[in-house]
Amino acid sequence: MLQPPPAEPGMREEEVDTPALLLDLDAFEHNLDAMAALLAPTGTKLRAHAKTHKSPVIALRQMARGAVGQCVQKVAEAEALAWGGVPDILVSNEVIAPRKLARLAALARIAKVAVCADTEAGIARIEQAAEAAGLRLTVLVEIDVGAVRCGVPPGPPAVALAERIAASPHLIFGGLQSYHGKAQHRRAPEERAALIAGAAEDTRRTVEQCRQRGLACAIVGGAGTGTFAHEAGSGVWTEIQAGSYIFMDADYARNAAPPPFRQSLFVLAQTMSVQAGRAVLDAGHKALPLDSGFPLVEGRPGAAYVSASDEHGTLTGEGLPALGEKVRLIPGHCDPTVDRYDWYVGVRGGRVECLWPVAARGGMA
Amino acid sequence: MLQPPPAEPGMREEEVDTPALLLDLDAFEHNLDAMAALLAPTGTKLRAHAKTHKSPVIALRQMARGAVGQCVQKVAEAEALAWGGVPDILVSNEVIAPRKLARLAALARIAKVAVCADTEAGIARIEQAAEAAGLRLTVLVEIDVGAVRCGVPPGPPAVALAERIAASPHLIFGGLQSYHGKAQHRRAPEERAALIAGAAEDTRRTVEQCRQRGLACAIVGGAGTGTFAHEAGSGVWTEIQAGSYIFMDADYARNAAPPPFRQSLFVLAQTMSVQAGRAVLDAGHKALPLDSGFPLVEGRPGAAYVSASDEHGTLTGEGLPALGEKVRLIPGHCDPTVDRYDWYVGVRGGRVECLWPVAARGGMA
Repeated sequence: MLQPPPAEPGMREEEVDTPALLLDLDAFEHNLDAMAALLAPTGTKLRAHAKTHKSPVIALRQMARGAVGQCVQKVAEAEALAWGGVPDILVSNEVIAPRKLARLAALARIAKVAVCADTEAGIARIEQAAEAAGLRLTVLVEIDVGAVRCGVPPGPPAVALAERIAASPHLIFGGLQSYHGKAQHRRAPEERAALIAGAAEDTRRTVEQCRQRGLACAIVGGAGTGTFAHEAGSGVWTEIQAGSYIFMDADYARNAAPPPFRQSLFVLAQTMSVQAGRAVLDAGHKALPLDSGFPLVEGRPGAAYVSASDEHGTLTGEGLPALGEKVRLIPGHCDPTVDRYDWYVGVRGGRVECLWPVAARGGMA
Repeated sequence: MLQPPPAEPGMREEEVDTPALLLDLDAFEHNLDAMAALLAPTGTKLRAHAKTHKSPVIALRQMARGAVGQCVQKVAEAEALAWGGVPDILVSNEVIAPRKLARLAALARIAKVAVCADTEAGIARIEQAAEAAGLRLTVLVEIDVGAVRCGVPPGPPAVALAERIAASPHLIFGGLQSYHGKAQHRRAPEERAALIAGAAEDTRRTVEQCRQRGLACAIVGGAGTGTFAHEAGSGVWTEIQAGSYIFMDADYARNAAPPPFRQSLFVLAQTMSVQAGRAVLDAGHKALPLDSGFPLVEGRPGAAYVSASDEHGTLTGEGLPALGEKVRLIPGHCDPTVDRYDWYVGVRGGRVECLWPVAARGGMA
């Protein structure tokens, strides 16, 4: 069941029902503009990652500032975007299941879509789906440049897959997917720089080896909010896939030399119990996933969110909120937090300005 | 947007789209029967906790085996149950927001509802909502017996709140809420027993002090899957609020002398990439929240789920699944895992038997 929106346009922020996913529109728009300004001189394009926001409304706002399209991780996310008017979508991930590939091929009739592969068997499945749908699908080879997750090793193994794609009658070789996820949250800036320098060398070599076989990499995609300046400045990547920059979170704020963006995403919570030395909020780890740690309390430097159960979060320290008072929390990790909510509540100047659906909420398939 | 069901009745389990929330119906029904059999000789009633399952279908199956009603943590959960035919619901938690209290009062016209309080101000707000709705609401006093979350101290502070409720024209004093959440997952059985013995003493004393003021505790509610045998055997509690027993999870399995129930809940995932030494599944921490650690891999004792990102889970070890193969994962923690999905896929004998909606999925308000 879809949850009803926790607010209506025109309400004051303190009237919003809790827990709610707040989007500070001034900070959000600042971030959109800042990324566009940072990338413009590099000549590298933005293909923002929709795994973060899951919203065609936000995708189209990114594209209005120059983004060439969107990335997604799941076919369900691609559907929500394409159905919401997003014209160019890359699944920056492998898709193996025939049902999912059939859905992706169906989307290729209303949007430009591409997908990644890292095995011969995976390529064969995409070829089958494209043939069955009577169209051609664009496929990128994902290379592992240090994340140790999906991706074939750079160099000859990647080139072999590129050739296999190019030789498939219903596939188009689209380039390389080269994302170093583990580099994004390394705390020291020099460590992030070194990891991306290594990834750049691996990627450059693979692009060159493809070129020697007559295979042009139209897209070389990768990068995230923690490292994008390195990829954009390398001359190797053509598209930056940052997602979190629009929202930010407590984990990115812990990086030394953190990314130059403002915190725009909050969970609004209410104090539902005040007992000796603690205030208990109505937002626990169902409202604020813990994979990157506890949230921070906005505007109350002496108060700390120190424990979470399913539906409760406990604050201790100085300047605790009174019973019934509402506080803005900065999520530990923006992506999974957004995915807990059905609605963004857009706020500006203390008032609710808009409600946007988290259209691909729960879209894991 | 609601996600479409990942299966249809009659499909084979390996045809179910992934990630999916599987319910092994034989194990689930065993657990329903086992709890009923364990509680019958104690005379203690079961008021199962719906924060775990969020489903009126499951609630009614518990009540068909003798449960007197359901607990919930949120008004949105109470709504999903009442609208789905559940006749008796206790919000085992504080509710402070006037909008939420108005919704709860509205439910009191179609179901028996009760709610908890742990402050004078909270009681005053419930009284206002009941008066505005023109009815009487039943309120329990929550006491803190060691969880250090919500709850007033046992003894005189609790009795004072009980008297305040009894003196409120639109409220009925319903008894005590006494839940020691932290005791459920203590690994050593003697530690769990000792914590509940202390909670029993605090609760017994408070019940007696209420009685001395002429206030009968019709309900003394508490207990969870990790400790319910102690509460049920104490003669203090009248209602057991266990939730997880129907599903179980990897965290309860780590308790020494774990609860006597079978694992019935799984996340079905598919291998989407196989590279040297690892198999990557399409289920990361958006599909399997990490608050209680990584999931276990069912039926593959040599394989371990060793890292999760938003949409990927990496297996290493022996006997890894091949590309495209599907595996059952045992979630780290059942409650938040269920809340990630729109549908239960009920399976028996390798076939999909039913689809049940997770009706209160995302119901945090």
